[in-house]
Amino acid sequence: MNKVSILGAGSWGTALAILLANNGHEVTLWSILEAEVEMLNTHREQIDKLPGVKLPANITITTDLEVSCKDKDLIVFAVASPYVRSTAKLAVPFIKENQIVVNVAKGIEDSTLDTLSDILNEELNNADVAVLSGPSHAEEVSHGIPTTVVVGAQSKATAYFIQDIFMSEKFRVYTSPDIIGIELGGSIKNVIALAAGIADGLGFGDNTKAALMTRGIAEISRLGIAMGGKIETFAGLSGVGDLIVTCTSKHSRNRTAGYLIGKGYTMNEAMDEVKQIVEGVYSAKAAYALAKKHDIPMPIVEQINLVLFENKPAKEAVDDLLTRDKRREYSDLKWNK
Amino acid sequence: MNKVSILGAGSWGTALAILLANNGHEVTLWSILEAEVEMLNTHREQIDKLPGVKLPANITITTDLEVSCKDKDLIVFAVASPYVRSTAKLAVPFIKENQIVVNVAKGIEDSTLDTLSDILNEELNNADVAVLSGPSHAEEVSHGIPTTVVVGAQSKATAYFIQDIFMSEKFRVYTSPDIIGIELGGSIKNVIALAAGIADGLGFGDNTKAALMTRGIAEISRLGIAMGGKIETFAGLSGVGDLIVTCTSKHSRNRTAGYLIGKGYTMNEAMDEVKQIVEGVYSAKAAYALAKKHDIPMPIVEQINLVLFENKPAKEAVDDLLTRDKRREYSDLKWNK
Repeated sequence: MNKVSILGAGSWGTALAILLANNGHEVTLWSILEAEVEMLNTHREQIDKLPGVKLPANITITTDLEVSCKDKDLIVFAVASPYVRSTAKLAVPFIKENQIVVNVAKGIEDSTLDTLSDILNEELNNADVAVLSGPSHAEEVSHGIPTTVVVGAQSKATAYFIQDIFMSEKFRVYTSPDIIGIELGGSIKNVIALAAGIADGLGFGDNTKAALMTRGIAEISRLGIAMGGKIETFAGLSGVGDLIVTCTSKHSRNRTAGYLIGKGYTMNEAMDEVKQIVEGVYSAKAAYALAKKHDIPMPIVEQINLVLFENKPAKEAVDDLLTRDKRREYSDLKWNK
Repeated sequence: MNKVSILGAGSWGTALAILLANNGHEVTLWSILEAEVEMLNTHREQIDKLPGVKLPANITITTDLEVSCKDKDLIVFAVASPYVRSTAKLAVPFIKENQIVVNVAKGIEDSTLDTLSDILNEELNNADVAVLSGPSHAEEVSHGIPTTVVVGAQSKATAYFIQDIFMSEKFRVYTSPDIIGIELGGSIKNVIALAAGIADGLGFGDNTKAALMTRGIAEISRLGIAMGGKIETFAGLSGVGDLIVTCTSKHSRNRTAGYLIGKGYTMNEAMDEVKQIVEGVYSAKAAYALAKKHDIPMPIVEQINLVLFENKPAKEAVDDLLTRDKRREYSDLKWNK
């Protein structure tokens, strides 16, 4: 039994709080929003974002960041990507040296091109920062549907420690040293999911979407390898696995936002309709900036940026992606003759 | 304009005949079944397998194999995998030296463990055998939905020749020298699709299915690389791309058969219900034999064999796949500390 705190009581933070409480840990769930904490305490349920799932008794819900951060075996960062830095700044006075922290949000900060673990490493002096990612819709995890994720950490000991805390019969945790690969896969797949959703919204078929997804993971891998990630990671749970679930599941906010854009909504209308944060919109700019910085061709990311931020019609963007010149699938496979 | 013959008038053969006729080629479509040819000639429509799509006028439909094979620029093998060898034996008297042949079916012969191009190379002396594969449901191709495939050939010249014949604005063709990689991806994904369908039928979620698919492509890649395929191919259109479409699309016969098995049907009941040939059932045995031959762990393929051929309950098989020991995702990534 460990003392675990979760910062952020959205759907993912709440689902993980339930999982960890059911694993027997002493869980504190923090939100910056008084109203959210009151709702959670009154109903013992995240009514807005995870309706129908009751919180076990062994979860303390609070707005007190000091209570949430002091004397914990593990702190889970589960705030949406735009709030990771501000939350870290608020939390740092209460976080001890070498505190083990695991980030479970996905995104890249577009002003700095930092990954979320970069931000935590900068803001939380000497914390031991890890990440957890994979195909894991919160709704399904909260209902005990079998789910498989990967924990990336700087040391084997930390990875195994976090694995032991999260692991259950229904929640399988693998470990990996490739933090950057895990983070890039988790963030940029949201941009590809916007593209897949747009293709769905425009009425293209399963063939079209599978081709986009395949090209999408290739783009992510190219960039990720240039940034030090491992090819195996992009072929794994936090790469193609998460891409698949995000591009095909009815639970995916990014796919749904793309679908609405394909149906003719503007980016802002689509975000309003989806209600929760659409990470792909935030990551799109950052991914495109990283592509340019590392000189990696990322045509899907490029077209999504044009649709989101320069009013390019979605149909034209998908057509442009689909009618690129014929070519070899991989230009570095050798012909024998 | 080229003279192209298509052997096999099922859904895929017919969809490709329509595509090639629309590309301006002189197309002959062959079936061994008198009744099928009569139906196609009477209605100019593959009523059973591709209803609602009319055949263009420039397609000749025949049971005459000599007419179909003589004097052609390209012969397309589009018969279901169990009939590739017998069809090749019937056709060989009419096939010239160095005839360019492209196989578009997917499967492995379980008695010999030959791929379909192995069979064509054995049966058609000195033919120049290529393959075409990728995420390409016939129904969607016949409706002009944008689709992307890859042609694998022994020489660049042959690959480019076939690419030019098939390429259209809605049907994008890439080329590759990796015939074996393309064939293994195309065949074994049908086995993984049975597993994905079973998980759906049992009521597991999108998280579970994405995990199975990710593990599935890893299994296929391990075997494929041991057999000489290239890792890039398994990450590409004919690998993960085709896996995605087969595991997620409503059009997929293999996924549907798996779904029914998950719902409690026997293998034979499921095959009866789906009506068309479920290639994954044929490929499952062969894939498992190849795994043993090359000493490659393929747990999903193994469990599907137990379900199909040894009456293991589907629920037990999926549970066994999901509760394997915790471990590192890739055992060859190095920890720094």
